[in-house]
Amino acid sequence: MDFTFDAQTQQRIQTLESFLAERIVPSEPTFHEQLAAQENRWEWSTVPVLKQLQQEARDLGLWNVFLPKEHADSPGLSNLEYAPLAEITGRSMHLAPPALNCSAPDTGNMEVLSLFGSPEQKERWLKPLLAAEIRSAFAMTEPDVASSDATNIATRIERDGDHYVLNGRKWWITGAMNPNCEVLIVMGKTDPDASRHRQQSMILVPRDTPGLTVKRGMEVFGYDDHEHGGHAELVFEDVRVPASNLIGEEGAGFAIAQARLGPGRIHHCMRSIGVAEAAIDLMCRRATGRVAFGRPIAAQGVVRDWIAESRVRIEQLRLLVLKTAWLMDTVGNRGAHTEIQAIKIATPQTVQWILDKAIQVHGAGGLSQDFPLAAAYAGIRTLRFADGPDEVHKNSLAKAEIARHLTEPADG
Amino acid sequence: MDFTFDAQTQQRIQTLESFLAERIVPSEPTFHEQLAAQENRWEWSTVPVLKQLQQEARDLGLWNVFLPKEHADSPGLSNLEYAPLAEITGRSMHLAPPALNCSAPDTGNMEVLSLFGSPEQKERWLKPLLAAEIRSAFAMTEPDVASSDATNIATRIERDGDHYVLNGRKWWITGAMNPNCEVLIVMGKTDPDASRHRQQSMILVPRDTPGLTVKRGMEVFGYDDHEHGGHAELVFEDVRVPASNLIGEEGAGFAIAQARLGPGRIHHCMRSIGVAEAAIDLMCRRATGRVAFGRPIAAQGVVRDWIAESRVRIEQLRLLVLKTAWLMDTVGNRGAHTEIQAIKIATPQTVQWILDKAIQVHGAGGLSQDFPLAAAYAGIRTLRFADGPDEVHKNSLAKAEIARHLTEPADG
Amino acid sequence: MDFTFDAQTQQRIQTLESFLAERIVPSEPTFHEQLAAQENRWEWSTVPVLKQLQQEARDLGLWNVFLPKEHADSPGLSNLEYAPLAEITGRSMHLAPPALNCSAPDTGNMEVLSLFGSPEQKERWLKPLLAAEIRSAFAMTEPDVASSDATNIATRIERDGDHYVLNGRKWWITGAMNPNCEVLIVMGKTDPDASRHRQQSMILVPRDTPGLTVKRGMEVFGYDDHEHGGHAELVFEDVRVPASNLIGEEGAGFAIAQARLGPGRIHHCMRSIGVAEAAIDLMCRRATGRVAFGRPIAAQGVVRDWIAESRVRIEQLRLLVLKTAWLMDTVGNRGAHTEIQAIKIATPQTVQWILDKAIQVHGAGGLSQDFPLAAAYAGIRTLRFADGPDEVHKNSLAKAEIARHLTEPADG
Amino acid sequence: MDFTFDAQTQQRIQTLESFLAERIVPSEPTFHEQLAAQENRWEWSTVPVLKQLQQEARDLGLWNVFLPKEHADSPGLSNLEYAPLAEITGRSMHLAPPALNCSAPDTGNMEVLSLFGSPEQKERWLKPLLAAEIRSAFAMTEPDVASSDATNIATRIERDGDHYVLNGRKWWITGAMNPNCEVLIVMGKTDPDASRHRQQSMILVPRDTPGLTVKRGMEVFGYDDHEHGGHAELVFEDVRVPASNLIGEEGAGFAIAQARLGPGRIHHCMRSIGVAEAAIDLMCRRATGRVAFGRPIAAQGVVRDWIAESRVRIEQLRLLVLKTAWLMDTVGNRGAHTEIQAIKIATPQTVQWILDKAIQVHGAGGLSQDFPLAAAYAGIRTLRFADGPDEVHKNSLAKAEIARHLTEPADG
Repeated sequence: MDFTFDAQTQQRIQTLESFLAERIVPSEPTFHEQLAAQENRWEWSTVPVLKQLQQEARDLGLWNVFLPKEHADSPGLSNLEYAPLAEITGRSMHLAPPALNCSAPDTGNMEVLSLFGSPEQKERWLKPLLAAEIRSAFAMTEPDVASSDATNIATRIERDGDHYVLNGRKWWITGAMNPNCEVLIVMGKTDPDASRHRQQSMILVPRDTPGLTVKRGMEVFGYDDHEHGGHAELVFEDVRVPASNLIGEEGAGFAIAQARLGPGRIHHCMRSIGVAEAAIDLMCRRATGRVAFGRPIAAQGVVRDWIAESRVRIEQLRLLVLKTAWLMDTVGNRGAHTEIQAIKIATPQTVQWILDKAIQVHGAGGLSQDFPLAAAYAGIRTLRFADGPDEVHKNSLAKAEIARHLTEPADG
Repeated sequence: MDFTFDAQTQQRIQTLESFLAERIVPSEPTFHEQLAAQENRWEWSTVPVLKQLQQEARDLGLWNVFLPKEHADSPGLSNLEYAPLAEITGRSMHLAPPALNCSAPDTGNMEVLSLFGSPEQKERWLKPLLAAEIRSAFAMTEPDVASSDATNIATRIERDGDHYVLNGRKWWITGAMNPNCEVLIVMGKTDPDASRHRQQSMILVPRDTPGLTVKRGMEVFGYDDHEHGGHAELVFEDVRVPASNLIGEEGAGFAIAQARLGPGRIHHCMRSIGVAEAAIDLMCRRATGRVAFGRPIAAQGVVRDWIAESRVRIEQLRLLVLKTAWLMDTVGNRGAHTEIQAIKIATPQTVQWILDKAIQVHGAGGLSQDFPLAAAYAGIRTLRFADGPDEVHKNSLAKAEIARHLTEPADG
Repeated sequence: MDFTFDAQTQQRIQTLESFLAERIVPSEPTFHEQLAAQENRWEWSTVPVLKQLQQEARDLGLWNVFLPKEHADSPGLSNLEYAPLAEITGRSMHLAPPALNCSAPDTGNMEVLSLFGSPEQKERWLKPLLAAEIRSAFAMTEPDVASSDATNIATRIERDGDHYVLNGRKWWITGAMNPNCEVLIVMGKTDPDASRHRQQSMILVPRDTPGLTVKRGMEVFGYDDHEHGGHAELVFEDVRVPASNLIGEEGAGFAIAQARLGPGRIHHCMRSIGVAEAAIDLMCRRATGRVAFGRPIAAQGVVRDWIAESRVRIEQLRLLVLKTAWLMDTVGNRGAHTEIQAIKIATPQTVQWILDKAIQVHGAGGLSQDFPLAAAYAGIRTLRFADGPDEVHKNSLAKAEIARHLTEPADG
Repeated sequence: MDFTFDAQTQQRIQTLESFLAERIVPSEPTFHEQLAAQENRWEWSTVPVLKQLQQEARDLGLWNVFLPKEHADSPGLSNLEYAPLAEITGRSMHLAPPALNCSAPDTGNMEVLSLFGSPEQKERWLKPLLAAEIRSAFAMTEPDVASSDATNIATRIERDGDHYVLNGRKWWITGAMNPNCEVLIVMGKTDPDASRHRQQSMILVPRDTPGLTVKRGMEVFGYDDHEHGGHAELVFEDVRVPASNLIGEEGAGFAIAQARLGPGRIHHCMRSIGVAEAAIDLMCRRATGRVAFGRPIAAQGVVRDWIAESRVRIEQLRLLVLKTAWLMDTVGNRGAHTEIQAIKIATPQTVQWILDKAIQVHGAGGLSQDFPLAAAYAGIRTLRFADGPDEVHKNSLAKAEIARHLTEPADG
C-alpha cells in the first residue's frame, strides 16, 4: 500500500497547478466579459480566451487527459493518474475543465464514441470533439418519468428503411443550447418488447436535424448555466437520422450507458472535491479577514468546528475516490461497482455540507454573485440526482451489502 | 392553557384560506405574465392583478392585518391573531403578502413610522404606505462590515444646518429597485463618539434624492428577485435630506431597530411555516404521483421518513412561534426576548431541511423553475443571515441560558 | 389560544417544585443507601424513605395525580393538568415518580383496571395499587418476535374449564423482579383464528402463580435497573389462573392496549423533558465551573451552540407534548392520534441529543456513576423502542399525512 | 499509489482471520465462564483460555505485532502492516487484543519502555510485559481538572534523596484493579515552575507500593469493565519509589506522552473499525432474520439507508486511518500530525453512528447483554474523550488549517 502519486503524476499535478494559478484563474473575468460580448450568450465554447487556454493546455500536455489510456486517442493516463488533475480543475469549476477539453458531457460522449463508435462515426464526430472544434450533448433524462429507472425511458427510436425516426421529450440536456454543439447522443427505445435491458439503443443526432427543437432552458436555483451551455428541454418529432448513426447494435443502449457511468463519476467526484477545497480556502480566508464583535470570525469555536469537520470529511472522501479510480484501473468498472456507488452517494452530501458552511461564514454575500459559493452549491446539489437520486444507489448498495453478509459465515 | 384560536380568528383564517385558494393562487400565472409585460421589470407593485387582489383584500377585511392592535391605524389584530394569517400567506410566498399589504420590508417600516414617526412623517409616508400607493425600503446592512454587530455600521448621517447629509454604502436593500419605492428608512451613525447603542439614528430618505444611486442588484443563488423588488446595493454620496426627516431623536436608531425586530420575526417565521406546509403538500402529492421501479415513491421508506419528520418538526415549530406571538402580546417584546431568538434560530433550519427533502422527492425538476421549491429554498436560506447570522443569536441565547442556571439553586 | 396554566395548576406546580427541591432530591442518597441495605436488592418499593415521601405526597395532594379525571378514583386532574407535574418528576427520574405513585408500569395498569376491571378485580388489585401497597407489571413484549406488530404475539391464553392456562415467553417486563410486585397484566392470544385485532386478550396473573418463572434480568447498557424493579425475562409454563382474572372480554386485548398507550406516552414524554431540563442545568453549571486552556468551557462557542440548541429544541418539544395532552382532554385519544405519534417520535431523539451533549461537556465523568447522565441516556434510548420502534410510528404517521394531502384540494 | 497490502501482510491477515474465526470467537463464552469462576473477578488476564490462546498466537507469529518495527523487541511490523490486524481484533473486542498481547494500555506502556526505558527498567518491566506475564496501567487523567490540557495535571512527583514521592489523585486508570497489574506509569509534575511543557515527568510505580490505594472503580454506562481490568480511581499519598524509576529525565513527561499517542490512536481507530464491521454484520443478519408487518426488516428503506451509509462511511474512514499509519511509517508522527488528529475526530463519531443504527435494528435486545452492541457503544463513546475531547482536537486542527491557507497564495 502506498499513498504517493508516481513521479510523472506529481509532475503533471505541478504543471496543472501552475497553469491554473497563473493562467486559468486570472482569465476568469476575461472569460465572462468575452462571453457577455458574444452574439449568442449560450455559445461559451468559442470565447477567445478559452480557445487561447486550450492551445496552451495542448502545449503543456494537459489535453484530453480524461480519456482512459486504453483508448486509441488517449494521451495515456489511467483513471488514477487523471483523478488529481480532475480535482484541480474543480477549483475553477467553469473554465478549467473545458480549457483541458475535459468537461462533461463531451468527455462521456468521447468515451462512448471511442469504445463503441464505427470508424465513420469516429471520423465524423470523435475527431472534432477531441480537437474541441465542436461540442456535443447527451440526451437521456426525460421529464415524464423517473429516469433513474432506465426502463422508464419512453423516447422511441424506430427503424424506417435506412433511417431511424425519433419521437419523444428529453430535459436537462446540458450543452444543447450552445450553437457550437453539433451532435447529440440520444438514448431511446428501439424494442419495447425486448428484455428489460435490451430495449434501449443510443443514436447520434445532429443538432440541426429537422424535428428536433429546443423547447426551453431549465434553471437550477435561478441559474440558467449559459456559461456551460445551459440545460435544454428538447422535443423530438419525427426526427430522422441515417441508420448508420446507431452506436453499436440495437439493444446495446443500456450496456453503453453503464460503461459511460464509471469514469464520469470519478470525474464528477474529483472535480467536486476541488470545489470543496476552493470553498475551504475561501472559508478560511474570510474567517480571518472578517471581524464581528471585536474579533475575527475565525476565533469563533463554531466556525473552527466547521473548518475542522470540512478537512476531516474531505480527506476521507478523496481517498475513497482515489481508491475507486485505482480499482477501475486494476479490476475494472464491474469490480469497482460498490465503490462507484459509494462515491456517488458520499460526494454530493459531503461537498454540499462544506459549501453550506462556507456560505454561512461569508454572510449574505456568500449567497450572491460576489462569491462562487452559491453557484457551486447549486451545481453540487444537482449531483444528488444525476444518474439517479442518492436513494436509488443507497438501496442498491445496501442490497448487495446484505447479500454479502448472508453468504459469509458469521463473524469473526 | 388552550390551543384553539378564538372564533373571530378562525373566521379570518377561513376567509383568507378561501381567498388564497380561489383568488390568489389562481392569479399567480397572471401576475407573472403582467409583470413580464411591465415596462420596468422591477416594478412589481403596480401590476394590475395585484391591485385588483388588494382591493378584494380590503373588502374582506384582510388589509394591513399585520399592524399590531396598539397602533392607531391598525385593523386591531394582536400578534397571535395575525400569526395564522401570516402562515397562510406563506403558501403563495410572493403574491399573498402584498395582496394583503403585509409584505416586508414595508410592514416593518409602517410599524416604525406608526410608533416613532412625527405627524408630518405619518401624513407624508405612512398614509400612502398603509394604502399601498407607494412602497418603501429599509437600509441597514452594509457590505464592508459584519452588520450583525450594529456598532459596525459605518454610514454617516451628519447634521448640516437644517439638513442631514448621508454618506456610505448599503446592500441587500430589498425593494429599492422598484420605481414605486418612494422612500427608504436609513440607519447610520450620527454620533460615533456616543455610547455603543446611542451612536445610530434612523432617517427617511426619498428614493429620488440626489446622491443616492443604485450600484447593482444582488442575486440570491441565481435569482434577482425582481418580482418583489430586488436587493439593491446603494451608494450614498452627500445625500441631503431635511432635518425633519429624522425618525425620533438622534441616537434612537438602535432602539428603533430593536423594536422593529420582534414582530418582523413572527411574520417571517409564520410565513416560512406556510412555505414548509406548501412544500409538504407538494412532496406528498409528488410522492404518490411518481412511479420508480414499479411502485410510487411514496412507498419508499426513506421518503416516508422525510414526510413524517417534516410533520413532526413543523408542528413543534409552529407552536413555538405562536407562543412567542402570545408572549409579545402579553408581556411585550422584551419579555419574549428568548423566544424571539429561539424562533429566529429554529425556523430557517427546520424549513430548509424540509425544502431540501421536498426537492429531493421531485428529482431534478425540484431545482428548476417548474416548482417553487428551489426559489423557496433560496429565500429561506437568506433567513439564516437576516438580522444577524444564527450563530450570533445562539451565542446570545446560550449566554442568557447559562446565566439563568447560575442564579437559580441547583436542581430540582 | 392561551399558554398559561390555570391558577390551580400553577399552585400544584409550585407545591411539587418545593417538594422536589426540599424533600425528594435531598432524599436520593438516602434512598440508595437504604436500598443497598434491603435484603432483596430488587425490592426498591418498600424502602423506608420512599414510604415516608409517599406519605408526604399524599398530604400535599400530589397522590395518584396521573389518573385522568374521568376515573372514579382520580384526584381529578386532566392530562394537561398532570403534564407539568410529570415533567418535574423527571428531574429526579427514579425517586420522584414513585413518591407520587405515578411511575410506570403501575400507572398504565391502574388505568386499565379502572377502565376495564370488574368490581372484584378493582377491589383485589386496583385498591392496593392506588395505595402503593403493592406493585404490578405489564407483560406484553416477547423475545422471539417483533412486538411492535401486536399480531406477532405468540403467548397463548387458553380456556380450560373455569380457568385460563398461559404458555409463552415475555421479556423486558419491568418491575417483575421486585417481590413487592404481586400481579402482572399479561397480553396473549386467546383465539389465533379471530380477526387480526380480536385475537388477543389481557389477563391478571398473580406473580406467585405456579409455572411462572423469572429466567433472568435484562440489562440496558450495563444497568440492571434494580432501583426500579429490573426488566425480567419470564417463562409461562401451564400457568393457570381463574377465568375471572380476564380483563374485559376475550378478544379485547388489542383495544385495551391501545387505550393504555395514549396517557402513557404523555407521561413518558413529559418526564423525559424533565430529564432534559435537568441535563441542561448540569451542562450549564459544569460549563461555567470547568476550566480548560485558561477559560471556562462555557466560553467555547461549540458548547454555547449545544446549550442554545438544547433550549430551542426542548421549548418546541414541550409545547407539542402539552398540546397533545390538551387534545386528549378535548377530543380524545383518537383525535390526538397523530400528535401522540409525533411526540413518541420527537421526544427520545431530542432528549438523547441533549444528553449526549451534556455528557460531552462533563468529560469522562459524564459517562460514570458520578452524574445521572449516562443512566438517563440509557433510559431514554429505550424509548426509541418502547411501544414499537420510531420507524414504525414514522411510517404510520407518514401514511396518514400522505392520505390527508390526497383528499384535500391542491394548495392554496 | 497502490491500495493493496503486500503479500506478507495479506498472509498475516488470513492467518489472523482464521485464528479469530476458529479459535478466538468460539472461546468467548469459555472466557466469560472461566472469568466468572476466578477468585478475583478483576483478574481477567490469567484466565486459562486466554493463556491458551496467547500460546497459540505466539506459535502463529501474531505475538506483540503492535510494536513498531524500529523497536528492538518488535516482530518487525510497520504501523501500516499492523493496522489491518488491529482491525480484525476489534471484531472480538475484549478477547482478541489480549490474545495477541496487543491490548491497551500495555501496548502504549511497552512502547514507552522500549523507547525511553533504562536497561534495568526494560529488564524488570518490559520483558514480562512482552511475555504477558504481568499487566500494567497508565495513570495520567485526574478527576479535578480538564486533563486534555496536560498543564492542568496536579499530581506531584517530588524528589526526596534517592526517591521520588508522589501525591495526587488519578481516575479512569484502566487495568489498575487487576491484581496481575504489577506496575503503573504515572504522569505528574516534577517542576511546577518550569516552562509549560517541561513541568511533567513519568515514573514507574509498582502497584503494591504503600500509599497507593484504589478508591473505587469507575463505571461506563453501568459497565464496570472488569473483563479488561476496570477503570480505577487511585489515591497517591506519599507514595515513595526509587529515583531510578523515573522514565527518561525530569521534565520529559510531556514529550513521552506525545510520542505514546500516535500509534495508540492508530490502534484504537483500527480496532474501532473492526467493531463497526462486526456491527454491520450483525445489522445485516438481523435485518434479514427478523420479520415485522409481514416482511423482513431488511426490506425497509430506512434500514437499507442505514446499511448503505454505514458501508460508505466506514470505507472512507478506514482509508484515512491506513493513510495515517502509512504517513507515520514514512514521515513520522510529526508529519502525520493533522491526520492523527483527523482520525481521532472521525472515528468515534462514525462508529458511534453505526452502532446506534445497529442497535435500533436489533430492537430492545440491542441494548441488552444478548448482543455486544451496547457495550461496544459504551466503549466507543469513551473515545470521544480519550486523549482529550473531540472539541480540543477540532479546534487545534482548524487553527492549523486556517494558518495554512493564510500562508498560501489565493487559489488557484
